[in-house]
Amino acid sequence: MQYDILETKERVLADNEREAVRLRETMRRRGVFFINLMASPGAGKTTLLKRTIEALRGEYNIAVMEADVDSDVDAKAISDLGARVIQLHSGGLCHMDADMTARGVDAFDLTGVDILFLENIGNLVCPAEFDVGSAKRVMLLSVPEGDDKPLKYPLMFQVSDLLMVTKIDTLPVFDFDKGRLEAGARAQHPGMPILYLSARTGEGFDAWLDWLRREAEAFRADAGKEN
Amino acid sequence: MQYDILETKERVLADNEREAVRLRETMRRRGVFFINLMASPGAGKTTLLKRTIEALRGEYNIAVMEADVDSDVDAKAISDLGARVIQLHSGGLCHMDADMTARGVDAFDLTGVDILFLENIGNLVCPAEFDVGSAKRVMLLSVPEGDDKPLKYPLMFQVSDLLMVTKIDTLPVFDFDKGRLEAGARAQHPGMPILYLSARTGEGFDAWLDWLRREAEAFRADAGKEN
Repeated sequence: MQYDILETKERVLADNEREAVRLRETMRRRGVFFINLMASPGAGKTTLLKRTIEALRGEYNIAVMEADVDSDVDAKAISDLGARVIQLHSGGLCHMDADMTARGVDAFDLTGVDILFLENIGNLVCPAEFDVGSAKRVMLLSVPEGDDKPLKYPLMFQVSDLLMVTKIDTLPVFDFDKGRLEAGARAQHPGMPILYLSARTGEGFDAWLDWLRREAEAFRADAGKEN
Repeated sequence: MQYDILETKERVLADNEREAVRLRETMRRRGVFFINLMASPGAGKTTLLKRTIEALRGEYNIAVMEADVDSDVDAKAISDLGARVIQLHSGGLCHMDADMTARGVDAFDLTGVDILFLENIGNLVCPAEFDVGSAKRVMLLSVPEGDDKPLKYPLMFQVSDLLMVTKIDTLPVFDFDKGRLEAGARAQHPGMPILYLSARTGEGFDAWLDWLRREAEAFRADAGKEN
């Protein structure tokens, strides 16, 4: 039975890769900087998005695709800020794939949108395996989850373009060793930038906004070359 | 493509259910109380197991199967306590199924073991779907993950026989509303007991040990009937 699953998975991953390449090209042509945001449950994805939308209001038009197994609590929170949002349900699956994401994009009015976030399903395993066609993948790890996560979820660290350590206002409460986290993360992904922030106190938030502006401009410059 | 996945999944789940029933019966015959422990990454599964093994030393012989995508850091931690432990690697999959679990059990010397824990892969989605043949399923939710998780991961709450809210020493640091959590959890699973504990301070730990003793004795009485 185990081998059946793996063969199916290989075919699924190959199909997914084709669809992801296609979607990435579509987004490049449309000039929408698309970010796949991944993390464990409760790591602070929605809070980060809310704060980011507020901070960049008037500077960038940000839209969000909320992916959940069920429910639409996060979509409501984003919508309350006046940002364009769509809720995707995975039908029990633990990740979004490129095909599901492309359907979400098709159902979305992206006119005038500069940056599109996919808030992926809360999980450090499956989302790491599925390229959804994003320009960048950003991973959140919250302090309460612990500094040993690179050892246990290596693929997530390998595929992410940026690691953001969240809830750093709780560092005094947890045994979290930044040096141990960084050594583990760098062992999986040597060049990956690591940022630390607290959405609650605002500490470190400017560095995240700087990264986002820089990458959005680089994307725009690159996309503009052939348009 | 999506329909292919779902059809495959149904067949996989049906196969899994047969294997789970078989394994549950095997464990009953051997008198081993088998618990499937599930939670998000970093919710405190390993810490709970370590404290439980220490607290019940001389009273119950506890063994552990550690499931991980990769690495064996948790198995080392358990082994250091002198408990019998085996490390299972899921080969990139986000959950353990009954077949993988049965292989782990076969490779294990269970002579004299009273209680066997499976520390499942850190994830609130996939492990909820796969019955691994355990007598009980226990779910951990840590305070930092937030009180809205029943809305977002309903199946995990529906299938669990006990919900343990961990890291309650951090309640003052997070906006976590016990009433909201309980209303959400009870909406998914009306009769489920909910315990609160901090493995760090020890608060609430006795109630967990009482639950474990009571369930282990009930299992033993039931298993003994036909032996």
